[in-house]
Amino acid sequence: MTKVKHRVGIRGNVEAVFQSLVTNDGLSGWWATSASGKAEVGSHIDLTFSGLAVLTFKYVELQSNKVARLKCVSGPGPWQDSELLFELEQSDEQVFLTLTHQNSNSTEDDFLYFSTKWPVYLLSLRDMIESGTGRPYPNDIKIHYGD
Amino acid sequence: MTKVKHRVGIRGNVEAVFQSLVTNDGLSGWWATSASGKAEVGSHIDLTFSGLAVLTFKYVELQSNKVARLKCVSGPGPWQDSELLFELEQSDEQVFLTLTHQNSNSTEDDFLYFSTKWPVYLLSLRDMIESGTGRPYPNDIKIHYGD
Repeated sequence: MTKVKHRVGIRGNVEAVFQSLVTNDGLSGWWATSASGKAEVGSHIDLTFSGLAVLTFKYVELQSNKVARLKCVSGPGPWQDSELLFELEQSDEQVFLTLTHQNSNSTEDDFLYFSTKWPVYLLSLRDMIESGTGRPYPNDIKIHYGD
Repeated sequence: MTKVKHRVGIRGNVEAVFQSLVTNDGLSGWWATSASGKAEVGSHIDLTFSGLAVLTFKYVELQSNKVARLKCVSGPGPWQDSELLFELEQSDEQVFLTLTHQNSNSTEDDFLYFSTKWPVYLLSLRDMIESGTGRPYPNDIKIHYGD
């Protein structure tokens, strides 16, 4: 099992940050090309990365403006059975968003990819909240040729 | 002890990537505000982050176009005694640069900072090689308010 963990600080409303994790418009504003689903515990959400992959997640825990935990129930190899835990914390000046991604199937290459790529997507989420424009796939910042 | 590890792919010459790790012009092109030192095993290099900190590293291993290993001999708390291992690998299409940063003193907050910030600086290095312009401190992409 491997785990990556990252944190960004966002100057914005904690509700807006939480919504970016649990709505189709939110998730397609910083991460996936499109999103379709419903954020209820036990419900599924499909994230389409155009021309690349579809990831299906199940929401396994939701605490409004605090926690969103998703389990990948369908997707390419290293995503299978992986779990994303997003934790939000309001401080005086910003909202801290911490992501923990646990994988049971990942290789060293997968680990290096996630460890380097997640900050790019979390900063895309930050930019979406702060400036109105994120960089969802395929407009994400690439971390290697062919990414 | 904590460890972070990241990898980026760079479309450029492996010598140019290596030089970015072992020359004053290189290190101040993507990371520090200014750099002063000499890349020889046992020699020191001072990296100044203007108005923030000075980090002094000792080169402990150098293999031309392959490996640069630096040990921090002076710097703020979490940097003390930490070690940076840069490994280069030429593939057909790009140069893969892998960084391992080991810390003996870091807290969870430090770990989260390094784990999220290193990709930003490694992509600054990539951009310096690919486009001629990196984002050394204080022009780095910030990961939280106050960063």
